[in-house]
Amino acid sequence: MPQNRQIVLDSRPTAEASTANFKLVTAGTPALQDGQVLVRHHYLSLDPYMRGRMNEGKSYAQPQPLGQVMIGATVGEVVESRHPKYAAGDQVTGMGGWQEYSVVDAGQPGALRKVDTTHVPLSHYLGAVGMPGVTAWYGLVKLIEPKAGQTVVVSAASGAVGSAVGVLAKVRGARAVGIAGGPDKCRYVTDELGFDACIDYKQHKDAQSLSKALKEACPDGIDGHFENVGGMVLDAVMLRANAFSRIAMCGMIAGYDGQPIPMAHPQLILTNRMRIEGFIVSEHMEVWPDALKELGTLVGTGKLRPRESVAQGLEAAPEAFLGMLKGRNFGKQLVKLV
Amino acid sequence: MPQNRQIVLDSRPTAEASTANFKLVTAGTPALQDGQVLVRHHYLSLDPYMRGRMNEGKSYAQPQPLGQVMIGATVGEVVESRHPKYAAGDQVTGMGGWQEYSVVDAGQPGALRKVDTTHVPLSHYLGAVGMPGVTAWYGLVKLIEPKAGQTVVVSAASGAVGSAVGVLAKVRGARAVGIAGGPDKCRYVTDELGFDACIDYKQHKDAQSLSKALKEACPDGIDGHFENVGGMVLDAVMLRANAFSRIAMCGMIAGYDGQPIPMAHPQLILTNRMRIEGFIVSEHMEVWPDALKELGTLVGTGKLRPRESVAQGLEAAPEAFLGMLKGRNFGKQLVKLV
Repeated sequence: MPQNRQIVLDSRPTAEASTANFKLVTAGTPALQDGQVLVRHHYLSLDPYMRGRMNEGKSYAQPQPLGQVMIGATVGEVVESRHPKYAAGDQVTGMGGWQEYSVVDAGQPGALRKVDTTHVPLSHYLGAVGMPGVTAWYGLVKLIEPKAGQTVVVSAASGAVGSAVGVLAKVRGARAVGIAGGPDKCRYVTDELGFDACIDYKQHKDAQSLSKALKEACPDGIDGHFENVGGMVLDAVMLRANAFSRIAMCGMIAGYDGQPIPMAHPQLILTNRMRIEGFIVSEHMEVWPDALKELGTLVGTGKLRPRESVAQGLEAAPEAFLGMLKGRNFGKQLVKLV
Repeated sequence: MPQNRQIVLDSRPTAEASTANFKLVTAGTPALQDGQVLVRHHYLSLDPYMRGRMNEGKSYAQPQPLGQVMIGATVGEVVESRHPKYAAGDQVTGMGGWQEYSVVDAGQPGALRKVDTTHVPLSHYLGAVGMPGVTAWYGLVKLIEPKAGQTVVVSAASGAVGSAVGVLAKVRGARAVGIAGGPDKCRYVTDELGFDACIDYKQHKDAQSLSKALKEACPDGIDGHFENVGGMVLDAVMLRANAFSRIAMCGMIAGYDGQPIPMAHPQLILTNRMRIEGFIVSEHMEVWPDALKELGTLVGTGKLRPRESVAQGLEAAPEAFLGMLKGRNFGKQLVKLV
């Protein structure tokens, strides 16, 4: 049985998370029982929701237990199987966690899914054709419901979720406007993803200034907004929101470290008759088949070209994760384990 | 032709509205043309939305033009008719404005509606069986959609809208919890309207304290909230909101005087997967027939017993209006003109 290196949550952050909250440990992999499969992880996904789970309090996910392997999505290869539906060599995606191997009860619904890498590279099943892509799809298609000619704004636009939001909006005939950090990310958003415009939020020190830039980028106002960030971005967008506009609330990364960030102008919800809705994609499993089908086609045909930031080796995961929370990644943040 | 006393908007408030913003003038009533009806107003309705219209900026209604009669709903009696469907003596409701008489193009859709005072007193057509009642109905039935056993909270619970929200929620098997100002209003809310509990917000100096009281009054958390006030009340409710809870945003009276009041914890929209939606009842005319039918029955059968604060004479309207904005009224604020 191979040695299995793992990263566990060692302590909860009191404010900003740090590498000291994590611990690298080594364990064996237990012998397989009937129905189980041993998976070697090729890539580990790092996602903002994990930060919420590190806190004890109420978040949009249950707290991560201390001393246990950090949860997380993985893609990899079956190395040994005692389940009739899986064989060594199968490529699979699952929730393997921050470790090199996992033993999976393969019969449990949703525990493992075989993936086809003919047209879609394995790692994209953690991004555009995985949970982040379906998150984009649900928020845009089910909550924002853009009509052709309407304007959709998305924050963290170069990220795994944001990039898919914009491309899905364009396919539906909407104007897509991104908000991202820095000229490189903005260039990718417009030139490679085909957004109509992208605003570099680092050029704006307050909501008022960002809101002016949004006015220029959205001459007909904002009909839909996909919020991955919160704080100043949300305030600026609300100042340009049209009557009957919709906001899909997906991430409030700005508030993860404890200090609550208020919404400056909640009365706009009333004056503009807005609808704001929070969601977690795992509570909407019914949309996954439709969403994955469209996303797989968009990636396979080159309409959605996801970027990836890849950290090397399990021990790099904590640093990569913390960097992602600060926006240091470019596109989907992964850890390559093999 | 009778002399017609009117109140016009003379200036816009720069912060808090005052009686100096209004002016009493006297005009004649023009001779009727074909299709027109002369209505003598018995009651004038005073409503919070009028404060929004006094400002120049964007609100949930168009600004009230300076020098023109303040808009407002009225009930009264036809005194002269040149329209075949109306005759002198008919009791009608319309948007007659802050004046003693109005000349109405009776053929315009929605301009006038005959009302039946057999079971429902005339004045209630400005309250529980009028726009405020339908406002309650739309927000509760269409946006909050309470299920039996769920908990619904409403602010300004003794008011024209709030009282109907609670009674409609009770009829649907929900637990109804009110928030109102002072022991008299709270007693009315529980004893006469049949709410399960009512919290006197004047006993609480911040959202934290009010939130503790809500915890006691809502042992199973809050599934739906009808917001008439905003500010501290909204913050306190959000701290007790359940997963998948809904907030119907109907009024933000706390923010009318210009200073924006932030929402303290917008991240709760995400962690609790909440839906917050603003609305204006006049944009949902399709629900009026169903809503008025249910509300009329509730009032006629004594299940909804609306309170009224009645000011005497047109000249009393500005003072009564400003008092209502400060919560000095008890129930629906009216001005009796006849």
